[in-house]
Amino acid sequence: MARGRFITLEGGEGSGKSTQGRLLADAIGGRGHEVVLTREPGGTAGAEAIRGLLVTGDTARWAPWSEALLMTAARVDHVARVIRPALARGAMVICDRYVDSTRAYQGAGHGLDDAALTRLHDDAVGLWPDLTLVFRLDAEAGLARARQRGGAEARFEGFAGDFHARIAAFFAGLPGREPARCRAIDASGSVADVHARIMAAL
Amino acid sequence: MARGRFITLEGGEGSGKSTQGRLLADAIGGRGHEVVLTREPGGTAGAEAIRGLLVTGDTARWAPWSEALLMTAARVDHVARVIRPALARGAMVICDRYVDSTRAYQGAGHGLDDAALTRLHDDAVGLWPDLTLVFRLDAEAGLARARQRGGAEARFEGFAGDFHARIAAFFAGLPGREPARCRAIDASGSVADVHARIMAAL
Repeated sequence: MARGRFITLEGGEGSGKSTQGRLLADAIGGRGHEVVLTREPGGTAGAEAIRGLLVTGDTARWAPWSEALLMTAARVDHVARVIRPALARGAMVICDRYVDSTRAYQGAGHGLDDAALTRLHDDAVGLWPDLTLVFRLDAEAGLARARQRGGAEARFEGFAGDFHARIAAFFAGLPGREPARCRAIDASGSVADVHARIMAAL
Repeated sequence: MARGRFITLEGGEGSGKSTQGRLLADAIGGRGHEVVLTREPGGTAGAEAIRGLLVTGDTARWAPWSEALLMTAARVDHVARVIRPALARGAMVICDRYVDSTRAYQGAGHGLDDAALTRLHDDAVGLWPDLTLVFRLDAEAGLARARQRGGAEARFEGFAGDFHARIAAFFAGLPGREPARCRAIDASGSVADVHARIMAAL
């Protein structure tokens, strides 16, 4: 059986990735193709336990490299137990955040070297997506949406505004820097509009 | 003030490192010098939370790279919050296990590439010990001691015997491969004998 396709959804807070992931999974699943919809950090029992350490507590709880390594430890577990097995049986895997979020948040946001983070991914994980949809939305608009949502997992929304601006700049430039893998998706407008753009991009 | 000296204690299970660390700290502290005695994985609140994920559960709970990254995430926290501040104020730091344990357990034991683990340490942690005492004890004798001790943190003792033989081989060869930093300590005989050998090595 042919290996399945691995699609990741990336972008800043409140850009609508999660909603669009569900709509995309429904659209592909409705055609009779197996779809695995998952997210990071999380997706397995081990990764969810690590996620619990990451998304709660105050913003100074973890140093940037601790964050990056916890994220990657969870990713290793998620890839080994969910993503690789699903791809091997021919399923399409749609993942809400993946390595580019680590590069954006801990790299561009907190100042870790992108080459070191990329090398870490190659060494420890070794699986890149076939296609990455990068959601493009004004950082302030996205943060306003995310703050409205609120909830217990608000640690990442608590960082200062220029942190989110650096993340937005990383994502904005990503499709241009890595065009073979990444495609920009305009995330403004209605949910139906964005969904139509995604289906057109596929 | 001169930066303090950073000494790590390394070796297989049950080689007496922890007991000897306490005796060494008492001996140095008795001379009026500030000593910080600490251990890995652990040593800070964040690192202890990560340690809780690592040392409990069954042996298949974590893939080798997840283990290595969790260990290193805890190390980053420990170095930033305890070890570097102590060295900066001139204290001697004695740490029971450090990067060589990751190279031994996840590298030699589980087959991860030593060059990748060393690069990860350089990128994420960036602090090597001034001196590493490598406790040398027959692997079977050490495991028998550790099993007798028992307790809830027995996950690492549960791996098959050849896993521990590969770890013992890594530690046995380490002082020869990295002689500028590492010194072998014969860990056989009485506690007092081993303590005397350590004081002589310093």
